[in-house]
Amino acid sequence: MSNEKEKMVTAITSMEDDFAKWYTDIVKKADLIDYSSVRGCMILRPYGYAIWELIQQQLDARFKASGHENVYMPMFIPESLLQKEKEHVEGFAPEVAWVTHGGEEKLTERLCVRPTSETLFCEHYANIIHSYRDLPKLYNQWCSVVRWEKTTRPFLRSLEFLWQEGHTVHATAKEAEEETISQLNEYADFCEKVLAMPVIKGQKTEKEKFAGAKQTYTIESLMHDGKALQSGTSHNFGDSFAKAFGIQYTDKDNTLKYVHETSWGVSTRLIGGLIMVHSDNNGLVLPPKVAPIQAIIIPIMPKKEGVLEKAEEIKAILSKICRVRLDNTDKSPGWKYSEYEMKGVPLRIELGPRDIEKGQAILVRRDTREKTIINLSEIGEEVLKLLEKIQTELLEKARKHRDTKTSTAKSMEEFKEILKTNQGFIKAMWCENEECENTIKEETGATARCMPFEQENISDVCVCCGKPAKKMIIWGKAY
Amino acid sequence: MSNEKEKMVTAITSMEDDFAKWYTDIVKKADLIDYSSVRGCMILRPYGYAIWELIQQQLDARFKASGHENVYMPMFIPESLLQKEKEHVEGFAPEVAWVTHGGEEKLTERLCVRPTSETLFCEHYANIIHSYRDLPKLYNQWCSVVRWEKTTRPFLRSLEFLWQEGHTVHATAKEAEEETISQLNEYADFCEKVLAMPVIKGQKTEKEKFAGAKQTYTIESLMHDGKALQSGTSHNFGDSFAKAFGIQYTDKDNTLKYVHETSWGVSTRLIGGLIMVHSDNNGLVLPPKVAPIQAIIIPIMPKKEGVLEKAEEIKAILSKICRVRLDNTDKSPGWKYSEYEMKGVPLRIELGPRDIEKGQAILVRRDTREKTIINLSEIGEEVLKLLEKIQTELLEKARKHRDTKTSTAKSMEEFKEILKTNQGFIKAMWCENEECENTIKEETGATARCMPFEQENISDVCVCCGKPAKKMIIWGKAY
Repeated sequence: MSNEKEKMVTAITSMEDDFAKWYTDIVKKADLIDYSSVRGCMILRPYGYAIWELIQQQLDARFKASGHENVYMPMFIPESLLQKEKEHVEGFAPEVAWVTHGGEEKLTERLCVRPTSETLFCEHYANIIHSYRDLPKLYNQWCSVVRWEKTTRPFLRSLEFLWQEGHTVHATAKEAEEETISQLNEYADFCEKVLAMPVIKGQKTEKEKFAGAKQTYTIESLMHDGKALQSGTSHNFGDSFAKAFGIQYTDKDNTLKYVHETSWGVSTRLIGGLIMVHSDNNGLVLPPKVAPIQAIIIPIMPKKEGVLEKAEEIKAILSKICRVRLDNTDKSPGWKYSEYEMKGVPLRIELGPRDIEKGQAILVRRDTREKTIINLSEIGEEVLKLLEKIQTELLEKARKHRDTKTSTAKSMEEFKEILKTNQGFIKAMWCENEECENTIKEETGATARCMPFEQENISDVCVCCGKPAKKMIIWGKAY
Repeated sequence: MSNEKEKMVTAITSMEDDFAKWYTDIVKKADLIDYSSVRGCMILRPYGYAIWELIQQQLDARFKASGHENVYMPMFIPESLLQKEKEHVEGFAPEVAWVTHGGEEKLTERLCVRPTSETLFCEHYANIIHSYRDLPKLYNQWCSVVRWEKTTRPFLRSLEFLWQEGHTVHATAKEAEEETISQLNEYADFCEKVLAMPVIKGQKTEKEKFAGAKQTYTIESLMHDGKALQSGTSHNFGDSFAKAFGIQYTDKDNTLKYVHETSWGVSTRLIGGLIMVHSDNNGLVLPPKVAPIQAIIIPIMPKKEGVLEKAEEIKAILSKICRVRLDNTDKSPGWKYSEYEMKGVPLRIELGPRDIEKGQAILVRRDTREKTIINLSEIGEEVLKLLEKIQTELLEKARKHRDTKTSTAKSMEEFKEILKTNQGFIKAMWCENEECENTIKEETGATARCMPFEQENISDVCVCCGKPAKKMIIWGKAY
């Protein structure tokens, strides 16, 4: 058994040795993805896709509960349509894939594969919105999008990725702003309660906001290596797209008004976040709420009379309350332990002839490896209790980690020192001048992650230029 | 009220006047789709997408119950990969969209947008299959595909459409054939039990089979206008793709063997089928199992005291057992009747002050317009009973319609006469010579829909050439 354990340990690079290698080892060895012959596009394997399905189902239920409806738009955008909103096309045109031929025929107008679907939604909205009675429209779409990135990494940045994009239309600026914030809050709540991933909510600077947006809000999370991950964004477009696309409605007072729009999205990138927030040198660690297998039953000496029967019996009981599997293959228990540790299964249930004699089983937590001996007659309650406990404690642990990696800087020297000694989030004051933002980025490699909603007064002056400060920024090196 | 009814009746072309126009009127006026500026691509609006979600959920549960797992493959296929299986590329290359540029850069190799994903799955399988222990692989994918069609019609034939594609790998030819048939049976059962759409199961002729397949099986259904719709297909590839892609495994006897593969798919085309099988001149008719709204409550004189309260109360009761909505807008009841008839809501619940006094409500079936007065205290049971009855009777009605439009032909004269007088399925004998198949197609416009599993001996000779017959074919003009 020890032999096999060693084998697994050498099979994965430790995160202290090479964080990037550790990450790609996990995505491959936990069977989340495979590479294909298409540069920068990944294959989501059954185990990886099952995590996405759990994310999708739970988010979709939240969206529907708040009155959003799903639609499906074409995957192609004609070049002229993409160009209708000026800032938007400037932001996206350099990174789209162009379809120039259909069958044998050269197209008269190029089509891009959607990098995001604002323009298609706007064209549709202009068709279907006429009166205040048609508002609001709260639409969402689950699909894949393409962005022609130069360097790619599984889940974090790929040429094609799966996501959802919400696109809503409102009568007033106030309603649009409320929707933008309310969806950001939904994302933050989902990340904390479901993914056990603490996030900071804030507003993007002018420099970092989405192409075409009036305001972009973001949730930012911190990875094991002290780098930040933008985990979801919510944009308020005001009426700029409405003006570009002519989306107007007749209000109650019989005057024509422009609508106000929002969009918001999260993607398979969340899975990259999950990995880098919770996992360890034995492989993936998954919060129970997004674990395709929540408990794995491993029979010890399964050939002994009664062991497999008892294991099946327990599986039948547990399958009513959680996602459980029984591994009755002929591999050794030690091999199975490593295998399911690698796959991040939250709970392992060990069951051998002596346990059965004593009417007990051993539960082992993936995250802490803590063992509990429980009474078989109470296995349902015990498993549920432990799954809940793991879910809660993973969030606490991630929050603590983030807090120890969050520092404040009052000078550029301090700023740079922190990046060397305790890379993570850096809180620092800013004068709101883009020049300072650029200088900090050039000198340190950190970018303004956001102006957090929870502002603090760390100092009265900008960390860069020393002029009066207006905002506290959270800085970090980002994925 | 009669005024508004008339308005609705004139708003939709009758199917007897112009079947094609009737069809497009329904897809537009029932808010299923909208057109976009991308030729041949449709927008699935919330109501249309909700039908697809119901189809998807129920099919997905069936696939998972039989051990299939979902994955996601890239949407692009490099030209060289598409060309690996000769028959396959010849079938698909003329109708794919080509990406030639990424961002500013011209690609060194063109990528096609997947028309189907056999080649990607095969490349992946070659990577991950090594031993008999790795088999079978039972994968499925939900995605959109693109086929560069010249003429398009919503749901029936569009440049881009949503579908699922199952791709499985097996150790033996026998297992692959069993999977191919078992998934065809799953489709047939789903069409009958869920979509209330009767289908004929059979095998495609050599001429009509899928590019690269050894055998293609199909489910064929008959539309109101007597045209056939290929509603789903299941292909057995044998080991041809395995040989082209080098997918081999080491068997228990330690020898290298080629795997055997299948693929099978259904698409949003099923929604087109639903419409043309069940709907009428008042609009859409939906079987309850795929109706986004199964019952609509319409309060009569909603301003009278107690009416809305009672309607809300009934909604609360019914929402526990079915998908129910209450329309409390200020539109007239007559307007609402037409609206929900157009949308195919299976049951209408009328509730006015006099009904409430008497402790009753009126239930009106969409399909037959039959009215039933029921006791409010039993509304839950009554609604469920009626929904089940509608589901069953829609299938019976469609089956009867199909049977009256199914004829047998023993000569070409008879064959042509039937197409004029009672267009539908035509059973006729065939010598298995492709020349006769071509002749019949040229002379009549009908194509061989399938060689049905349930063979009959209509005559001893081929309907075309008079030589000895080997198979009974079901012919029809097809969408």
